[in-house]
Amino acid sequence: MTSLASRGGRPTLALVGATGAVGRVTQQVLAMRADIWGEIRVAAAHEDAGTELSVCGRDLVIQELTADFFDGVDIAMLDVPAALAAEWAPVAVARGVVVIDNSSALRGDPDIPLVVPEVNPAQIRNRPKGIIANPGATTLTIIDVLAVLHAGWELTELVVASYQAASGAGRVGMARLYDELEVVAGHRELGNQAGDVRRLIEHELGERSPFPAPLALNVVPWIGSADEGGWTTEELKIRNETRKVLGLPDLRVSATCVRVPVVTAHSVAVHATFARRIDVHQARQALVEAPAVVVLDDPETLEFPTPSDAVGSDPRFAGRLRQALDFPNTLDFFICGDNLRKGAALNMVQVAELVAGDLAG
Amino acid sequence: MTSLASRGGRPTLALVGATGAVGRVTQQVLAMRADIWGEIRVAAAHEDAGTELSVCGRDLVIQELTADFFDGVDIAMLDVPAALAAEWAPVAVARGVVVIDNSSALRGDPDIPLVVPEVNPAQIRNRPKGIIANPGATTLTIIDVLAVLHAGWELTELVVASYQAASGAGRVGMARLYDELEVVAGHRELGNQAGDVRRLIEHELGERSPFPAPLALNVVPWIGSADEGGWTTEELKIRNETRKVLGLPDLRVSATCVRVPVVTAHSVAVHATFARRIDVHQARQALVEAPAVVVLDDPETLEFPTPSDAVGSDPRFAGRLRQALDFPNTLDFFICGDNLRKGAALNMVQVAELVAGDLAG
Repeated sequence: MTSLASRGGRPTLALVGATGAVGRVTQQVLAMRADIWGEIRVAAAHEDAGTELSVCGRDLVIQELTADFFDGVDIAMLDVPAALAAEWAPVAVARGVVVIDNSSALRGDPDIPLVVPEVNPAQIRNRPKGIIANPGATTLTIIDVLAVLHAGWELTELVVASYQAASGAGRVGMARLYDELEVVAGHRELGNQAGDVRRLIEHELGERSPFPAPLALNVVPWIGSADEGGWTTEELKIRNETRKVLGLPDLRVSATCVRVPVVTAHSVAVHATFARRIDVHQARQALVEAPAVVVLDDPETLEFPTPSDAVGSDPRFAGRLRQALDFPNTLDFFICGDNLRKGAALNMVQVAELVAGDLAG
Repeated sequence: MTSLASRGGRPTLALVGATGAVGRVTQQVLAMRADIWGEIRVAAAHEDAGTELSVCGRDLVIQELTADFFDGVDIAMLDVPAALAAEWAPVAVARGVVVIDNSSALRGDPDIPLVVPEVNPAQIRNRPKGIIANPGATTLTIIDVLAVLHAGWELTELVVASYQAASGAGRVGMARLYDELEVVAGHRELGNQAGDVRRLIEHELGERSPFPAPLALNVVPWIGSADEGGWTTEELKIRNETRKVLGLPDLRVSATCVRVPVVTAHSVAVHATFARRIDVHQARQALVEAPAVVVLDDPETLEFPTPSDAVGSDPRFAGRLRQALDFPNTLDFFICGDNLRKGAALNMVQVAELVAGDLAG
């Protein structure tokens, strides 16, 4: 294997799953950041292979995914379904690639670090399997706010309820939401009638949907698949990933995950309890000073974060900070973040940049 | 004052605010229940006075609200803004009327009971001021589920996050949501762009809205007005009303209230802690047996409640029941209920029926 330094020091980057919702945003993110890359390669599903893309000024032809695709690649970002990730990550590693995987397949493996550059950047070096996992978008919405507060006051309990966007289900999710919105938008008479919106949507669009219930004019308290005890995989991911990234294996967590008719940007209502007495003013100041967090929090001017503020932006937007009235050492607050950007693409690219530095150094 | 018995025993009912979102549903609810009423009178704002309505087979002319409107009325249901309710409730009481008020103006008065017929029906007789208050729609979404569980296991803590419908802001809220949906539905290209949906909505519809941010393709974590410490009036209402209806003045409560782009039916994610060891199977069975609660809760068949299941229906729909993994004696669950029906109109009518029985008895 040729060393990175012997090839001029600029690493070769691969993006697998380039044409999905996350893949497209990854291209945008790469174009906005310092171009530290040598060659860039892109792969996608069979139907997109052969078409062209422009990434960071390089005109690229989308390749089909084969073992040879990884030859000479230094770092590969994978955004593919979990089963494909579990299959292809070891193939890439066997060719000497450091893999950054955005699926949920490998996040639980104790030999695969789960890295958020603002929180645990040093963990990128702890990769005995050559794989680094990217947390899920809902965890990434809350994790650096929690890390800032944990550093000051020691997080002990977390109760969260999410408001998750359709794009968490990829391009097919975004398309379905718009399809449904176009069906219902012209039917004001139905908004108040039991079942009629559901019947209209299913009549016009069919029952096949990436969501287990209509999403337009509705909210759907089911994301992922069934895990033990009535919990969804999505809810347990928040628990497991938050514990792993913060290094708090005994953190007490309850999460309720709900899909809402928003295209992009997840929101989370957080009730967080700390070991030490937390003061809302000090907490707000700590978040104001956090580089990746924007505080939008002024009841007098009705300043608070919404998904429409977060979409297309890098930071997490935090607001509605309140001292819990009846719970000691507890704050309630609300966070919004772009689930495709920091919630997926941006974090992968940040991790890739850290790995590039590590390979060079 | 003539006694009710001397007038044949059928009480005269008045509905003030007959043409609002709640007033219209109140008419529907009255038509679906046993007609125990003698005369029915309706009043509404100036611009609707003189137009005709049909309620329970009676053709009625909408009257303007004057003190004389209340002459001979036994029971009046008020659905008007808080300031008007505070002004007119005593006027009605002075004419011998029992007032059921759906505004938030009087709910905190210790001499005015807050009544949910499934929970504290006997409180209708405890009305030293001649006024009974109706709880807010979000409290009414959760209160009878909480009452059932409290009866078995003794509720001590409540952390809730709401998903509240546009009709909580009345007809103007419903119209604004549909206006916004029609603006955004045809613009798929904007779903991923920071600020563009907001700019488009404000350009097409103007900035004047019943909501403090765009609601289409968004969620808005601000309902009501600013109270102390960054809390909204809506959030503190849930705390105060739940405490009052359940008779638990020290119940620990944190609520986050969020408006979502749903026309009608509120949803609430609940994290509830009890004094005694609660088992999820026993809790589910207790809710199955509760007359006003429908349990939709089967992960295997993807059965869970959504607003589209609840709209136009009388019961509360409960599901996603889970034993909290890290919190002793705690359950997490999700409840949906029609905010105009049980959340306002149905509860008012049920209370009016109880008062009618009390006046007759």
